[in-house]
Amino acid sequence: MSKPEIRISRFQDGYSWECVEREVYKSGQEVGRDWQGIVRQVLVGKDGETTAFHLRYFEVAPGGYSSLEKHEHAHVVIAIRGHGRAILDATAYDLNPFDTVYVAPWTPHQFQAAGDEPFGFFCIVDSERDRPQSVSSTEAIVAQAVGARGRS
Amino acid sequence: MSKPEIRISRFQDGYSWECVEREVYKSGQEVGRDWQGIVRQVLVGKDGETTAFHLRYFEVAPGGYSSLEKHEHAHVVIAIRGHGRAILDATAYDLNPFDTVYVAPWTPHQFQAAGDEPFGFFCIVDSERDRPQSVSSTEAIVAQAVGARGRS
Repeated sequence: MSKPEIRISRFQDGYSWECVEREVYKSGQEVGRDWQGIVRQVLVGKDGETTAFHLRYFEVAPGGYSSLEKHEHAHVVIAIRGHGRAILDATAYDLNPFDTVYVAPWTPHQFQAAGDEPFGFFCIVDSERDRPQSVSSTEAIVAQAVGARGRS
Repeated sequence: MSKPEIRISRFQDGYSWECVEREVYKSGQEVGRDWQGIVRQVLVGKDGETTAFHLRYFEVAPGGYSSLEKHEHAHVVIAIRGHGRAILDATAYDLNPFDTVYVAPWTPHQFQAAGDEPFGFFCIVDSERDRPQSVSSTEAIVAQAVGARGRS
């Protein structure tokens, strides 16, 4: 049996963790997807952990949003910082700290910051997962009708 | 494609979630394992979710502790309420809100409340996992030397 590799990641000022890289995505786009003002920190998933899942912390700057997308794998989100909004299919949900969200497979979804402070949340996903896809034009129209932002 | 089943679990006063059962384990023991003052809330894992992981929130009352145990599956813990201590193998680690812990396979581990308020944490585990085992007498002696509590 190989030696256990225990790891404690210490939380620090500014919603960062000791020895965890802050990956900044100011804005970007791929075919049919765009996003703005996102920082990602991967807490579990980059160091050969044996878990069937990865744990990431995302932070969305005021005015920012994740891409409107869908995929086979489900998301689990735990809001922890500030206030946000989840666009899920044809509904917008306000999110406050410690609210949790189960985003079922193939649900078109987008996360947005609400208000003047960053919106931060943990997002847990299967370690083996499909790539995000852009939503259909009908799904985009539906999502934008309830508040989705950006290109679609 | 079946209809997505989105779920928002709203956080409420008293560190509980709307429509989520609070499972209370005042104290108990099985062969070689005991625990005290634990409340569990299963946020993801009881409703046919497709994820390869489950999300639970555990709260340990002041003076309480989880069982000292080990298993093949890894744990990921996110401290969120109060202050606690993780006994991992031969080391005790203080835990403060938003510190995260990766408990590698087969690491003897116990979580304890520290101070006068409850210690609350999310614990993420693989949905398919082995049962916890009691630690060996040597592992128990080592863990108790660094602060593990209860029977072992």
